[in-house]
Amino acid sequence: MQTALKAATIGPRGANPLVGSILVDERGRVLAAGHHRGAGTYHAERDCLASALAAGITDFSATKLYTTLEPCTHYGRQPACTDLITEAGIPTVLIGARDPSTNGGGVEVLRSRGTEVVDGLLRKQCEQLNHRWNRAVKEDRIFVTVHLAQSIDARIAAADGTSQWITSETSREHTHRIRQRVDAILVGTNTVTTDDPRLTARDERGALTPGQPLRAVMGRSEIPDLAQLTQGRPEGEGWIHLRTRDPLTALRTLAETQHNGHPVKHVLVEGGQSVLSAFFAADLVDEIFVYTAPLILGTGRASLTDIGVTTLAEARRYTLDAADGGPTTIMNNDVCIHLQPEPKGAH
Amino acid sequence: MQTALKAATIGPRGANPLVGSILVDERGRVLAAGHHRGAGTYHAERDCLASALAAGITDFSATKLYTTLEPCTHYGRQPACTDLITEAGIPTVLIGARDPSTNGGGVEVLRSRGTEVVDGLLRKQCEQLNHRWNRAVKEDRIFVTVHLAQSIDARIAAADGTSQWITSETSREHTHRIRQRVDAILVGTNTVTTDDPRLTARDERGALTPGQPLRAVMGRSEIPDLAQLTQGRPEGEGWIHLRTRDPLTALRTLAETQHNGHPVKHVLVEGGQSVLSAFFAADLVDEIFVYTAPLILGTGRASLTDIGVTTLAEARRYTLDAADGGPTTIMNNDVCIHLQPEPKGAH
Repeated sequence: MQTALKAATIGPRGANPLVGSILVDERGRVLAAGHHRGAGTYHAERDCLASALAAGITDFSATKLYTTLEPCTHYGRQPACTDLITEAGIPTVLIGARDPSTNGGGVEVLRSRGTEVVDGLLRKQCEQLNHRWNRAVKEDRIFVTVHLAQSIDARIAAADGTSQWITSETSREHTHRIRQRVDAILVGTNTVTTDDPRLTARDERGALTPGQPLRAVMGRSEIPDLAQLTQGRPEGEGWIHLRTRDPLTALRTLAETQHNGHPVKHVLVEGGQSVLSAFFAADLVDEIFVYTAPLILGTGRASLTDIGVTTLAEARRYTLDAADGGPTTIMNNDVCIHLQPEPKGAH
Repeated sequence: MQTALKAATIGPRGANPLVGSILVDERGRVLAAGHHRGAGTYHAERDCLASALAAGITDFSATKLYTTLEPCTHYGRQPACTDLITEAGIPTVLIGARDPSTNGGGVEVLRSRGTEVVDGLLRKQCEQLNHRWNRAVKEDRIFVTVHLAQSIDARIAAADGTSQWITSETSREHTHRIRQRVDAILVGTNTVTTDDPRLTARDERGALTPGQPLRAVMGRSEIPDLAQLTQGRPEGEGWIHLRTRDPLTALRTLAETQHNGHPVKHVLVEGGQSVLSAFFAADLVDEIFVYTAPLILGTGRASLTDIGVTTLAEARRYTLDAADGGPTTIMNNDVCIHLQPEPKGAH
């Protein structure tokens, strides 16, 4: 199960949980490993079985499947993993954590078909792996990734407002890769007025990638008619204005919004200061990428402002996230720190 | 020379430059490598020769020594490297950069003794390695290391002033290791009044290490009689009050101060906001360690304030420093980023 956990952390966080699976033979030797690469791609179990098939394995009658999360029972964008396991004829499945979402119930389904199921192997670690995704599921809200792109002294613009570019091209390309796998990008009205961003996902050559995310603007102020993010189209056609300052209300509206043929389940909140601070204040940030550029401005706009914390003991605490590239990555001369909220009771 | 350069970066920055040396045989095979570990320790050449001797090498008549910096001619806390090379009988020495300090002149000394000297091998890279040390030498001032210990949003205290501890114990132990190898620690009068630090170098068990650094306080305000850093002793006995707000004046006074039997040549500036900002404003920071703790405060005291930069193009720019542990180190849950000023004209 440790091997499966390690495989799980290769994947990216988002609408779907991190999952890793390994297939072993009767002597415990690893025959194949798999992991989930994000919404719309193979689940870990299928990824693992595909690897096994590619390696020429066709007889699964003496194998065991370890998987960090209960196999799904739901035929969504991907076939139900319980069905794949049954069809392959895997007699024993060892499961880490239960799935609290509507995809759950795999343990019972497999047992009803005669599969031997060992439940709760390294349960705590397997649950911890997706503790924040579990919470988003329980709160019935979409998963929130945040990015901060700032100087060493946490400024996002100099005193005169200049801000392009504080971070390196490598960091900005990384952001575009995140944009490619979220359902929506969210910024505040002030950011639209000040920076007039396009909010598109582009590849290394600057070309638009397929399946562009929804462009969402949050706040009570109006959006300028000529704002680039509208692309000259009326609201509802690729972009939306969430007329609220409350992040939870904004998330609820996004969850009810269909985009690219499915509801929004993962949003990247990019800025600015007020919107980001509102999400941190409400403890609605599930994942953070902090890009620190090696420069100092001294004054200028800070990346964050009041989040309702007045004393150190109340600070919002995070922990380094080993998933999706690891806790720190050097991006040209910038350092990207990957964080997730500390599990409750950890501090 | 690339191998020698790599060896050089193992060492710490400070009063002395980073230097690496390797000894090769007639076929170019590396027999021994050495590097400098900071003021008061073996120079790289001696470190390399000691390794060679330890490996049983006694005949140097067919060897060549590559060294990133011109060997010293000065018998200070360590014997002159030119003498060691001559005594060992090494016939050929290949040198990267010249030494701009009073220790220079090794090329001429060696040639006058009949040693073959190749000068300027990878000179640019060897000079770049110590570009900021070279500048401090040219400006005839002491080397300045700075540490920032801050939250993700660059706060050093919460709104109510609480600040102990933002960073982890591992980060604070790392700071104590830096304190052990500087000649002086500098803070502002405001830090003394607010935090009342001891400014001592302690080991992992909390015990004082031998050869404590000078405790220096900078600023026009008075120091409270009961301040811990005085240890109940009069000024001049382990501590000094620099009655100025100008960092260069403070450095000049420190340079004229004898401590532990020699003049102050390397200072660690620890805070607070005004003192650090004054050093950054004056471009007198040669090395930075930024400890980022994974927490967010939103408001509270910022690590830095106005440094005279009003627009992005004027930002103080730094570059990741591969020396002394590398550009990033995870310290428990904190991330330490190691930086040095960008060489002029690099941006």
